[in-house]
Amino acid sequence: MHFFEDLTQIEFVDVIEFLGTIAFAISGIRLASAKQFDWFGALVVGFVTAVGGGTVRDLLLDVPPFWMQSSRYILCTAFAFVIVLFFRKYLVHLNNTIFWFDCIGLGLFVVVGYEKALALDYHVWVCVAMATVTGIVGGMIRDILINEIPIVFTQELYAIACILGGVLFSILYYLNVDLVVIEISTAIFVVIIRVLATRYHLKLPTLKGED
Amino acid sequence: MHFFEDLTQIEFVDVIEFLGTIAFAISGIRLASAKQFDWFGALVVGFVTAVGGGTVRDLLLDVPPFWMQSSRYILCTAFAFVIVLFFRKYLVHLNNTIFWFDCIGLGLFVVVGYEKALALDYHVWVCVAMATVTGIVGGMIRDILINEIPIVFTQELYAIACILGGVLFSILYYLNVDLVVIEISTAIFVVIIRVLATRYHLKLPTLKGED
Amino acid sequence: MHFFEDLTQIEFVDVIEFLGTIAFAISGIRLASAKQFDWFGALVVGFVTAVGGGTVRDLLLDVPPFWMQSSRYILCTAFAFVIVLFFRKYLVHLNNTIFWFDCIGLGLFVVVGYEKALALDYHVWVCVAMATVTGIVGGMIRDILINEIPIVFTQELYAIACILGGVLFSILYYLNVDLVVIEISTAIFVVIIRVLATRYHLKLPTLKGED
Repeated sequence: MHFFEDLTQIEFVDVIEFLGTIAFAISGIRLASAKQFDWFGALVVGFVTAVGGGTVRDLLLDVPPFWMQSSRYILCTAFAFVIVLFFRKYLVHLNNTIFWFDCIGLGLFVVVGYEKALALDYHVWVCVAMATVTGIVGGMIRDILINEIPIVFTQELYAIACILGGVLFSILYYLNVDLVVIEISTAIFVVIIRVLATRYHLKLPTLKGED
Repeated sequence: MHFFEDLTQIEFVDVIEFLGTIAFAISGIRLASAKQFDWFGALVVGFVTAVGGGTVRDLLLDVPPFWMQSSRYILCTAFAFVIVLFFRKYLVHLNNTIFWFDCIGLGLFVVVGYEKALALDYHVWVCVAMATVTGIVGGMIRDILINEIPIVFTQELYAIACILGGVLFSILYYLNVDLVVIEISTAIFVVIIRVLATRYHLKLPTLKGED
Repeated sequence: MHFFEDLTQIEFVDVIEFLGTIAFAISGIRLASAKQFDWFGALVVGFVTAVGGGTVRDLLLDVPPFWMQSSRYILCTAFAFVIVLFFRKYLVHLNNTIFWFDCIGLGLFVVVGYEKALALDYHVWVCVAMATVTGIVGGMIRDILINEIPIVFTQELYAIACILGGVLFSILYYLNVDLVVIEISTAIFVVIIRVLATRYHLKLPTLKGED
């Protein structure tokens, strides 16, 4: 019978993952709160926002869901919940900081998602798809749970940042660039697109439907 | 080529599972009917309410979905459908009975979910999570299909009953209590919390969102 | 590292699959456009409509998701997107043609879904369920993503066509009919039911809910 695992062996990439997970969870908890969800509901929506993308990716790749191997993701979500509970009034002043955590987390999620598919020897386009699934599906499930249209389908270049990050990874990998360089370049590239898209309100066009 | 399996070997725990499955299916069928779903829609929503939680659990644990191993779950759903179809007018007088079946079913689902994760040697908190997933995800998918916010996020201590049941299971298991005693204690404990929460309208607080 | 696979070895059944995939994707892209989704959102909804049913089937059967083995499904979705983008005004005149592609695609999806479960030696009713899941779940996810009640639960005999197709397959298989004859008969049978149901607005009754 196991309890929580050893949390003393933390590396730099883990810190980035913590920040990203917390930022994603905070976005879910805030949106759930705005819909009058109770504490449990807010926690679940926060958790699903943070781990939903990676879970769907792992189910599609038929590997064990990553968050079931380590309690760190549920602890990060609990921490995010405490932040929202006690520092609600000040969060609005922290929006900029949380946005940066969210961007950096997205960059990491894209790299992790790509590499998981690559390790299983999938086609390039499947790797790009898994990078994108890792980045956006958590937010999609969040929006379904709060009964809204997924924001990723209508606003800003969130998904495009994931796709372009995956494309950059593919090109650099094809050119035999060192893996660490690829990882850092891809993550930074995702962050840059995301920041520019948000600052300049860049959006994809919409398709006009028939009547 | 197989047809339906032998249903003559039924034990006590099977009877409880039948009652729980029927109670869960009835809740799905009634809510679907209220939204003008047709017969097929009502059957699907009833079936998903009954087996959705266990299915997501089995996908996460990477074991074959339980309802694909036995036709009893689809037969229970068909039976629930016949009940709603013919005894609709009298169901309101049976609400109390159905509520009890629902509670007992939930107690069983929590035990089954916990033990499936335990058998695969997962962390304690994963076992508690799988117990909770088994108990609540069917109702969550039901509410998504009828395009409502999942009721488990806003009302009564439904999910908390699952979590506390899982915690009790963990404590008793750690103390090396006999497994049958653990199973019965956990199921009864879940039923008690659920009944008390419903009788006294106990609810978790909500997080107040920013504007 | 793989790029796109060889697309030169195309057989007759592949052409039918292309047409079905394109028709399913077009339905998703048009509905997403009507909800002001951007290009990415429309592409994702189109893709999910086309491959969602088969993906859920493959997850339940624990086999690798079919669309991750071949780029043809994402290319068909891209092609459907281009059609909607450039020929939007004329699509309304093509509704009849698209409807036929949709019906033929559905017939094929039912056969493929049934056979995938049969190959894994599942019960007859699981085979019928997997045929139906393959046919309808893509449209269900599409409707959840655009935040509507799944149309398959309220309109026309879409799901019944899948179920009856599965039943016919089971009967013919039990009678040891040649497999190619079964496949063609089942597909044509599904198309006929779907066409008749649409032409004569055949619907299942609804269950009347209590107040």
